This record gives sequence, structure tokens and C-alpha cells, in this order.
Amino acid sequence: MDKFSPLFWPARFKQGVIWCLDEMALPRRMRWLRADNLPQAISLIKNMHTRAFGQVLMAYYIFLLLLEKVRGKAPLRQMVALNRAARAINESRPTFPFAFFTGMVLGWADAAQKDGGDISLLLRKKIDGFLQGLRQARIRQAEKLSKIIIRRKALLTHCNVSGSLVLAAQFCRRQNKDLRFFVTETRPYLQGARLSAWELSRAGFEVTVIPDSAVAWLMGQGRVDAVVVGADQLAQNGDIANKIGTYQIALLAKRFNLPFYALCPPRSAAKSGRDIRIELRPQKELLEFCGRRIAPQKAQGLYPAFDITPADLITRRIELTI
Amino acid sequence: MDKFSPLFWPARFKQGVIWCLDEMALPRRMRWLRADNLPQAISLIKNMHTRAFGQVLMAYYIFLLLLEKVRGKAPLRQMVALNRAARAINESRPTFPFAFFTGMVLGWADAAQKDGGDISLLLRKKIDGFLQGLRQARIRQAEKLSKIIIRRKALLTHCNVSGSLVLAAQFCRRQNKDLRFFVTETRPYLQGARLSAWELSRAGFEVTVIPDSAVAWLMGQGRVDAVVVGADQLAQNGDIANKIGTYQIALLAKRFNLPFYALCPPRSAAKSGRDIRIELRPQKELLEFCGRRIAPQKAQGLYPAFDITPADLITRRIELTI
Repeated sequence: MDKFSPLFWPARFKQGVIWCLDEMALPRRMRWLRADNLPQAISLIKNMHTRAFGQVLMAYYIFLLLLEKVRGKAPLRQMVALNRAARAINESRPTFPFAFFTGMVLGWADAAQKDGGDISLLLRKKIDGFLQGLRQARIRQAEKLSKIIIRRKALLTHCNVSGSLVLAAQFCRRQNKDLRFFVTETRPYLQGARLSAWELSRAGFEVTVIPDSAVAWLMGQGRVDAVVVGADQLAQNGDIANKIGTYQIALLAKRFNLPFYALCPPRSAAKSGRDIRIELRPQKELLEFCGRRIAPQKAQGLYPAFDITPADLITRRIELTI
Repeated sequence: MDKFSPLFWPARFKQGVIWCLDEMALPRRMRWLRADNLPQAISLIKNMHTRAFGQVLMAYYIFLLLLEKVRGKAPLRQMVALNRAARAINESRPTFPFAFFTGMVLGWADAAQKDGGDISLLLRKKIDGFLQGLRQARIRQAEKLSKIIIRRKALLTHCNVSGSLVLAAQFCRRQNKDLRFFVTETRPYLQGARLSAWELSRAGFEVTVIPDSAVAWLMGQGRVDAVVVGADQLAQNGDIANKIGTYQIALLAKRFNLPFYALCPPRSAAKSGRDIRIELRPQKELLEFCGRRIAPQKAQGLYPAFDITPADLITRRIELTI
């Protein structure tokens, strides 16, 4: 088996400290940022040093971090700290369904408290077990995807799905030697050009970066066989929220009769995409580059970080079954 | 009447020198670059210091420049110089229909030579007259557009149409006080964020820059009433070649039932879009920003500078009638 992409598990918890792969520094530098308290960890999420699946890990590791800090304290004090952390995590970025994950941990904590056990000890066990299961579930999800793409020649992807697409490609590499990738650059954070192109090319796959605006041109030339994207949130009805641009790629895939696959997290509480709040990021993230203003001072910027792709545009959801 | 945008006439010819508005330096600096020989002028085009309508002016001014240099020389020598210039202009960038404009000048030169007149003198008169007519034709074209957009609230534009859209907006400003604009940033050269946002905002219009990938999201929210773009080339059948991304915006406009208007140059010799060669620009223009490599070294880049929008996606062409 090939090595996992560093993006497959982009955060660690070791000896009371969270280490978070700095996805903003890639591909120039592979560095891990340290967080040893709640505000530091939240700031890594808000400032997009980690994103997508990294946020799931951060949520659980923040609880592990706090459990170390409150170890031996009264159960009530522990519960207060956990609830405060859950709120801070949930509010860090609005579109990602943090509440699904933090709610799970608070549920375990409540149960532990009712049983009168050592909350800290029980919770650490639960979280460790869950993350082990999550790792296996992500590997199974990539295996499922590999069976779907095994006969494809050229896949288009947008943004970055944290190691899952490259893992799927590695799974089917023996039978599918020609598999190659187009990635949209994914402005303004360039996760396609920086992250997807990086992890796919370092795993030995041929990768070509295109401007976000060249999708229809590429499809019209018959150079893409299928589209694979991730999803930050999967609603009950099958709608997904994912990086801005996913929706128009899905519409174009439909227009060109191309299958559109989405690697999805577990379903959130949202009934449909309409119930998912779209995060509007600060306009300067769009209007500046390398610290320089691109647009004139009088211009406004509008940078929705995500959009909703309705279920009927998704050929197949590859769900994460934990 | 309001002032013209500097982009409406982004090149000048004065006392034997071409002055070309450096569209790469905008909006930070408004500077004019000097060219006093053919290679310098061609390099301004190739390196995109001027583009779109600026290229038309450059073609004619290059002839004026050369006519100064060959004044008094033998007619044959003058014709050789003109033909050499026409070839260099035509080959500078492949998608723009330079041959239409250079062919016009060579035709005048041939006629002048046959009549036995002073080629240089006659040609200068012809070119001056044509450019005066062109200026009026562009004003009429903007007036036509103004009648079409007079009841619209929010227009989306892509790339930059060299002063024509802002002129149309100025024409209808009195009756249409609320007209505002969304502009795609238009990677990789950011002509939307840098040029369209600049000329529209300095003319007093409200402008909002969006990522190229946010078009479907914006349309889906009902925040756009119509799309207006330019065209680098108009084929005989009504297909247009324009900045990469135009095609997918046209497909999305169709999907959302929005009118799609194109400001077009005179028809070229191409029968349809299939006969138009799409320029592939150097990949580093996509993979680098501020002189820094964005993507990993092993990744390729594919940057088609234009795409073809078929006639059936264009609600209305506003043609330039010279």
C-alpha cells in the first residue's frame, strides 16, 4: 500500500498539545502549527490553517486538550468546560456542521456523568475509539470511490478532499495506470492548485491545474470523464454544501452529461441545503493577494466560501459510514 | 456627458511614438508605455500590457509608426515594411482577428500603390479617418447597449470591455439611478477585479467583485438581471471568442433564464467558433502569482486564454457598425 497523504489526517494530539498541519503554507512548506489552548485552536480554524476534514479532528482534539486541563476537577466544572468548548467550536465557522461532532462528545459526557464515572477517562476512551473508527471509515469510503473511478481516464476535482481522492486513486492504480487529474485552482485560497495538485502529484499522478473559469471549456473538449468533489456538509435530503464553485461545476457536469460524485460526511441535522448557512468570508481575502490590494479601493468584494449543490445534480454520494 | 474611461481609447500615437496604457499596472498606477519600433509594440501586445480593443489601436498605430520610418522611401520598400508589420501583428496573439484590421490597411496600401499616389500620405489619411469613424461607432454601440440595459438593476460582467460598458451605463444613468455591477475577478490576469471594477467605480457605479466560481451562486440567489460581456472575435455564424470563462457564464445564464448580451467587433473571416484558434498562454501565468509559484513543481498548468460561446447562448449581439 502507498503512503497516506499528509492531508488524510491533518492534525495530531500528542502530550497535551494539538499539532495542526498548516494548509496555508502548502505546498511551499510542510509545517505543523501548535495549539495548547482553546483560543489558539479556534483561531487555526477561523483563519483556515486547517479546513475540511481537519476541522473534524480539531473538534475532537480540542476536547482532548481540555480534558487534560480539567482532569481531577469536579464533574460539574468539567462539564462547564466541555460545553464552553463545544460552543466555541460550533461558532468558529458557520457552514461546517461542527454541532454534529461536538453534540456527539457532549452526549458521551452526559452519559458518563449520569453513570458517575470518571468523565475525563471515559471521554478520552470514547474519542480515541471514535477516531480509530473514523480512520477506518475514511479508508472504506476511499475504497468505495476507487471502484467507481476504476475505468475513468481523467477526473476533474475542485478544492481539496483531504487525502480521500488520492487514496482512492492509489487503490485503483494497478488496474488503472492512466488515471490523471484536472484540478481547478479554487480561488481565492487556491486549495486546488496548492493542496489537491500537491497531494496528487507527490503520489505520482499526473495533475493539471486549470483556472476556475475553464471548466466548461475543458468539458466541452471531452477531456474530462467525471467530477469528484468533497462536501463540508450533507443535508438530510442529499443536498451538499461545499467550496464555492461546486454548484456551477455540478450544473456544467449535468450539461455535458458527466457523472458528478461527492465524498460526503455523515448527514447533518439540516433538512435541505436551504437550512445551511453560507459563510461569507471577509472581502479582503478576495481583494488582496500577497498582501497587495488587487481591486480598486472603491470596489466591494463578495466572497461566499461555500455554495449548495442540490441532490439532483449529484450522480452518486459516497457517504462516510462510521 | 461624463468623461470617457481611459480604457475606452487605451493607446495613442503622438509625434512618431505609440503610447499604450499599461493595463497590467492598473488599478495601482495609470501609466503609459512607450513603443517607438515594431518589436517593442508587438511585445506590449504579447505580454498583455494592452488587450481587447487596445489591440485594434495598436495595429493601426504600428502602421502609422512604420509609415513615419519609411516616409520618402521607394513604394516597394514601403510595401515590404507594411507587409512585414502585418505579419508580425497577425502572429502576435492567435485568437484576436488581427488579420481583419491589418488586411484592411494592406488593401488601402495596395490601392494607393496602384493609383501611383504617396502611399504614406494616403494611408495616414485612411487610418486617421477610420479611427475617427471607429470612435463614433463605439459610442453608437454603447448607446445601443444603454437602451437594452436601461431597466436592469444588476449586471454581471466578466473580464473587461474597454470602456464600452461604463459608457453605456453613463448613457442610461439619468433614467436608471440604481444600476450596479457584479464583476468576476477573471483569473489569472484579474481584468475584472483590476480593470472593470476600476473603470466602473471611478465613474461612480457600485461594483462588487466575486470569485469566478461564484457565478452560479449569485445567479441562484436572483441577484443578477443580465450578463454583459465583450468579444475578441465574432465569427460569421454569430459564435464569439472571448476571455476564458465566458462560455460557462453563458451556459449558466441560460440555465437561470438570464439574458446574455455581447458587445461584438465586426465579423471576422471565421465561419464559426470552430475555425477560431484558442490561444494557450504559458502555464506559469497561471501557476505563479507575485513572482511566487502557487502550485507544486510537478503540477502542470493549462491556461486557455479564450473560449467559444456558441451563437445560440447569446440573447443579443450588439455589433460594431463602422
